[in-house]
Amino acid sequence: MKQRIQSIILPLLILFLAMGCTNADQSNLSKKWKKVYPGVWKNDSRKSPTYDLLSSSGSSPKTEILKTFKNSAFPLSKNEIEISQKNGKTYLSFPLERKEQIYGLGLNFKTVKRRGQIFRLHVDHYNGVDNGRNHAPVPFFVSSKGYGVLINAARYIDVYVGTGVRKNAKNPAVVKDRNMDPTWEPMPYSDNIEIIVPESGVDVILFAGDNMMEVVQKFNLYCGGGFIPPKWGLGFWHRTPTMYNQKKVTEEINNFKKKKFPLDVIGLEPGWHSKAYPCTFEWDSTRFPTPKQFTQKLLKKDHIRLNLWCNPYLWPGSDLDKKMEPYTGSHTVWNGTIPDYTIPEAQKVFQNHIKKHQLDLGISGFKIDEVDGLDRWLWPDYATFPSGLDGEQMRQTYGTLLMKTTNDAYRSKNERTYGLIRAANAGSVSYPYVIYNDYYNHKDFITALINSSFSGVLWTPEVRASKTSEEWVRRMQSVCFAPIAMLNAWANGTKPWSYPEVYEACQEVAFLRMQLLPYIYSTFAQYYLKGTPPFRAMELVDHQIKGGIKVSKKLDDTENPYAETASKDLKDQYMMGDYILVAPMFEGQKKREVLLPKGRWFDFYTGKLVGEGGKITVQCGLDKIPLFIKDGAIIPMIPKIRQTSEWTLETPITVRVYGNKSGSFELYNDDGSSLNYEKGDYSLIKLKRDGTSTSTEIINNGKWQPKHISWEFVTK
Amino acid sequence: MKQRIQSIILPLLILFLAMGCTNADQSNLSKKWKKVYPGVWKNDSRKSPTYDLLSSSGSSPKTEILKTFKNSAFPLSKNEIEISQKNGKTYLSFPLERKEQIYGLGLNFKTVKRRGQIFRLHVDHYNGVDNGRNHAPVPFFVSSKGYGVLINAARYIDVYVGTGVRKNAKNPAVVKDRNMDPTWEPMPYSDNIEIIVPESGVDVILFAGDNMMEVVQKFNLYCGGGFIPPKWGLGFWHRTPTMYNQKKVTEEINNFKKKKFPLDVIGLEPGWHSKAYPCTFEWDSTRFPTPKQFTQKLLKKDHIRLNLWCNPYLWPGSDLDKKMEPYTGSHTVWNGTIPDYTIPEAQKVFQNHIKKHQLDLGISGFKIDEVDGLDRWLWPDYATFPSGLDGEQMRQTYGTLLMKTTNDAYRSKNERTYGLIRAANAGSVSYPYVIYNDYYNHKDFITALINSSFSGVLWTPEVRASKTSEEWVRRMQSVCFAPIAMLNAWANGTKPWSYPEVYEACQEVAFLRMQLLPYIYSTFAQYYLKGTPPFRAMELVDHQIKGGIKVSKKLDDTENPYAETASKDLKDQYMMGDYILVAPMFEGQKKREVLLPKGRWFDFYTGKLVGEGGKITVQCGLDKIPLFIKDGAIIPMIPKIRQTSEWTLETPITVRVYGNKSGSFELYNDDGSSLNYEKGDYSLIKLKRDGTSTSTEIINNGKWQPKHISWEFVTK
Repeated sequence: MKQRIQSIILPLLILFLAMGCTNADQSNLSKKWKKVYPGVWKNDSRKSPTYDLLSSSGSSPKTEILKTFKNSAFPLSKNEIEISQKNGKTYLSFPLERKEQIYGLGLNFKTVKRRGQIFRLHVDHYNGVDNGRNHAPVPFFVSSKGYGVLINAARYIDVYVGTGVRKNAKNPAVVKDRNMDPTWEPMPYSDNIEIIVPESGVDVILFAGDNMMEVVQKFNLYCGGGFIPPKWGLGFWHRTPTMYNQKKVTEEINNFKKKKFPLDVIGLEPGWHSKAYPCTFEWDSTRFPTPKQFTQKLLKKDHIRLNLWCNPYLWPGSDLDKKMEPYTGSHTVWNGTIPDYTIPEAQKVFQNHIKKHQLDLGISGFKIDEVDGLDRWLWPDYATFPSGLDGEQMRQTYGTLLMKTTNDAYRSKNERTYGLIRAANAGSVSYPYVIYNDYYNHKDFITALINSSFSGVLWTPEVRASKTSEEWVRRMQSVCFAPIAMLNAWANGTKPWSYPEVYEACQEVAFLRMQLLPYIYSTFAQYYLKGTPPFRAMELVDHQIKGGIKVSKKLDDTENPYAETASKDLKDQYMMGDYILVAPMFEGQKKREVLLPKGRWFDFYTGKLVGEGGKITVQCGLDKIPLFIKDGAIIPMIPKIRQTSEWTLETPITVRVYGNKSGSFELYNDDGSSLNYEKGDYSLIKLKRDGTSTSTEIINNGKWQPKHISWEFVTK
Repeated sequence: MKQRIQSIILPLLILFLAMGCTNADQSNLSKKWKKVYPGVWKNDSRKSPTYDLLSSSGSSPKTEILKTFKNSAFPLSKNEIEISQKNGKTYLSFPLERKEQIYGLGLNFKTVKRRGQIFRLHVDHYNGVDNGRNHAPVPFFVSSKGYGVLINAARYIDVYVGTGVRKNAKNPAVVKDRNMDPTWEPMPYSDNIEIIVPESGVDVILFAGDNMMEVVQKFNLYCGGGFIPPKWGLGFWHRTPTMYNQKKVTEEINNFKKKKFPLDVIGLEPGWHSKAYPCTFEWDSTRFPTPKQFTQKLLKKDHIRLNLWCNPYLWPGSDLDKKMEPYTGSHTVWNGTIPDYTIPEAQKVFQNHIKKHQLDLGISGFKIDEVDGLDRWLWPDYATFPSGLDGEQMRQTYGTLLMKTTNDAYRSKNERTYGLIRAANAGSVSYPYVIYNDYYNHKDFITALINSSFSGVLWTPEVRASKTSEEWVRRMQSVCFAPIAMLNAWANGTKPWSYPEVYEACQEVAFLRMQLLPYIYSTFAQYYLKGTPPFRAMELVDHQIKGGIKVSKKLDDTENPYAETASKDLKDQYMMGDYILVAPMFEGQKKREVLLPKGRWFDFYTGKLVGEGGKITVQCGLDKIPLFIKDGAIIPMIPKIRQTSEWTLETPITVRVYGNKSGSFELYNDDGSSLNYEKGDYSLIKLKRDGTSTSTEIINNGKWQPKHISWEFVTK
């Protein structure tokens, strides 16, 4: 009977629905932009909220800060934006102009400019190709015109950045005969950026500002804003070999002291677990018989913090797994169960366990491995989870869920943590984690650092091993100008002094990082207070910088059968904070080119003028990393200290001044380890320079003001 | 008012529908296997037929031949097969046994065995990784257990071949501690092959047989069966440089004659079009002022056939484009319009044009380029076509549509064609096209040839250029043991004699191919009559052949951080027909290993016994390609002729006999160029050998029986 009713009425109902849906879905979908903040508009075409990137992170916009921006005009012609739905997918199209360039769309390693590329944004371990599979495939792009778009969907998203050409294009390309016309191009002009989201309706946020930096700030703030790491997190990190025990780690710490190398954090690798791959999250009783004693001794006597490796897949039958069981997914990873951390009870189970076994002992944080890929390690897309989420949704957000869950545990103790993670996405910007991976191309590592600034994530080009001492010191130099300065000796057992002929240079740069702590810390404060990424692509500080030149490439029937030209991205130099242009040297290089933004630039070490916009050639010995300083730079530094515990209010600050330009810098300070700063418990001191005069001004309160500030004019 | 009705009634209707859908979709989906032929079952869970791979090709099963197979038991436990639907996708799961190996799933270039791999089957130009993106990502897999599964869907399909591990797996893996257990494996045992099809319901066909070869035969026959190429197609092909004109081509043909090198087909590259990229499909009046005269002279005087390069994107405003306009898609490729060849009118427009401009002049076929990828050349997935198909559906089937459309044009003239294509899929097996590409790794080329045999497609490892004369002759040797023996000089202008020191060896192997024409032709007849692929993976002829050995690989924190072992595929040797084992040498090799199937094997050139199953080491000078012959082989050969036009009923056949085993071979012949064989107008002569006696027997009719047959016992 039921079937008869269905077979008669169903078609009628479907007809009626289809009529309704057609009208309701299509009408003015692309016109519904609702202004939510100055220069921020939202267009949500979903019938009701779904699991998305922002909801997965639990973040909320930094409303008060966003309101301080001035208004912007809607950056595009609304008529040229298309948003439509068909067969359970949403199609979006945004117009592009001829000279417009696009950035962002995740943690790519080989390219910075996006136009002409196609991505399928899919969390995965990077595999050598910028195709959308990477650790943070954030669906946010920024335009050189001064706007950005966030597609807030926890799905695999296809993005065609100026590749598709419509038959009826508004800006059609000129047809050319490849036989006879040498100007024939393999990629005709495309006037749109188009996106496919495999969901019915999607939440889109559009940002506009005076320049790309403002757009990125608004994006970061909308997604929760940046964070301030604990001070100890900005010291040097050393990860010990996997099977090290308490004794070996103690020796290691003593060696760092004897050899006079900075050290704030020791990273323990899988061997601290009683079982790993999958993990118990319990100390191995042979290798770490007295974990609490050990951790406390490191904290109190050696001023060393411990960061523990883990992957989130639970050893079946372990204590944690037994409690977690009702909240785990349909599949296993390395035979370990997969907790569904969208479920509050699952979060609590995990937090209770790690508090009991790790946090309460004094453990300072985690390195959360293997939340990215590969497809063959992790759960398949058809896996299911008790919350109802599927494998794809979980894949796109698992890193974010782990960051949130672990960070909340520290938060509940009013403690900051700082750790490592292998996957992130939109919404995770406020979580104190830095991305790393198993890849190792030094140049590509720097490109990733550059790209991180467009996507609201942080990246570290960790050092692990090297073929030569030249390579070793160059990598050490780079990593000391990154969010986490780290040597990861999990497999190789390397030490900073493994290459004696360059040890002194390694020490130099590690101590230089320590000297720059006040500057770096204040830079991170900008991340929290204004959404400004601490490490920046050149285009974010000078969007007119001419980074790319087209390089003609010969026709080759295998390598280049379409005679494509190669566009040279500016992908080997970046800004650390407002003033320091970092131009790392790579193994084999005797000299390198540096592209200076507009204005005058000075050598960090000598204070001398090196150029004023445009290209310079730099020669730099192994003992230094090329650093160039913006005119008017004000860089607060401390003496060479080995550990951040030595950095107190008493520590004298020398403020280095470069060039001639007047300006100011906001020196930030706080207690360095609690979350009290979120309630306003911090100091902002404005360091001002006007010609040859200098002054300081307390912006909010002087509680954390350094006691001794002196100035040094480096440029004579 | 309408909106109010909708907002009240819609939810009720949705509820009602959902109730109905839940019951109708899920019940017994996986149990509905309908037997359609002996050892062939069908499970179609779609509500109504959709565009799929088989419908796109217009093929029908070879019913009469399929009925001749004996019955097989259903090869799996029906309870262990899962087929379910959710959110517009269909999920399928098939059980795997421990020792079971999987093959197929398209034209991969680096691996043969599939277990442990994940594919997203997506037509594209191969890009160096076996991840599902290739020229023929056929969703058909074969199991060593003797069954196969075809997923007949024109969509991007995800296949997890024994990678996902369910928490409640029937065959759970043993949990191991990576810290302490050296037997820890990065890929725990997975007991299923799982598939995601992005459509609601899917047509699945399951095949079973005595062995993998039977399964492949049934698959090929179900998809329309193989084809017999025109005799001229099995001669030597030479593609001339892009901008060659009538005069230069004529010179080239004369040079082949002077230098005594086989030549049946000349390939003209883009320069014959008046405009290319996109194409006019009209002769350029400067380079080819008298195309009909030219073509006829080549045919009649030089016995040369012409094959014309094209890509299917139409020059806007050309004659063809003007007629095609109503049938073209939303986007352009190289500014050319994209015809929707699912529309009969579009097919007719194209066929009328190419008949008028090419076929009626005597042109013998096409090389259909750029129907595979890249994503940035071709239309995006969100493109739409007048038939209602979307970009994804068109992408998966465009090669098939072009093959069908062009082949039908020849068919209407009762002519065979033989051509080249860059994309194919399930359903295209009966179309006379061979795949080629811009890749060039010689070893990978052989692996592709091997994999083609599991997927109902053909592949040629064309020669283009070389760095050394050794590389040149080795490539020439390989390509002469492939479906099309071709030198493609479109970019480099190479000739067979470009490397003088190896020219004689090149001549030898090219003439050897000509000598083997009756054997090769008869082998193709098996393709048509029985669905047996002409070029075969070793596992198809001896499924017990132990082709792989696990190679332990060292832990490396960058290259191999999970200490994965590498499984060695048998991927550098294959069978041409029933008897000839081809083991190509690669540049730099002085010797190589060959894995002989069970039974005795003999050297082709000397007739001597080389081994009996197992591995042998072979040393082979540049002058020969290693060839090994099965015991009891019966190989009909003709004298060294330069062109297939010299091969007539008068041409003496020498039947070579190897080893001692008794047996028979079906020598096939017909008129070599029309489709009359489809009506039974062919001869099958059984060549029989019993000890030292030989005989011939007419199987169906003697019309095309060669007049002179003699025997040669090569093994003394």
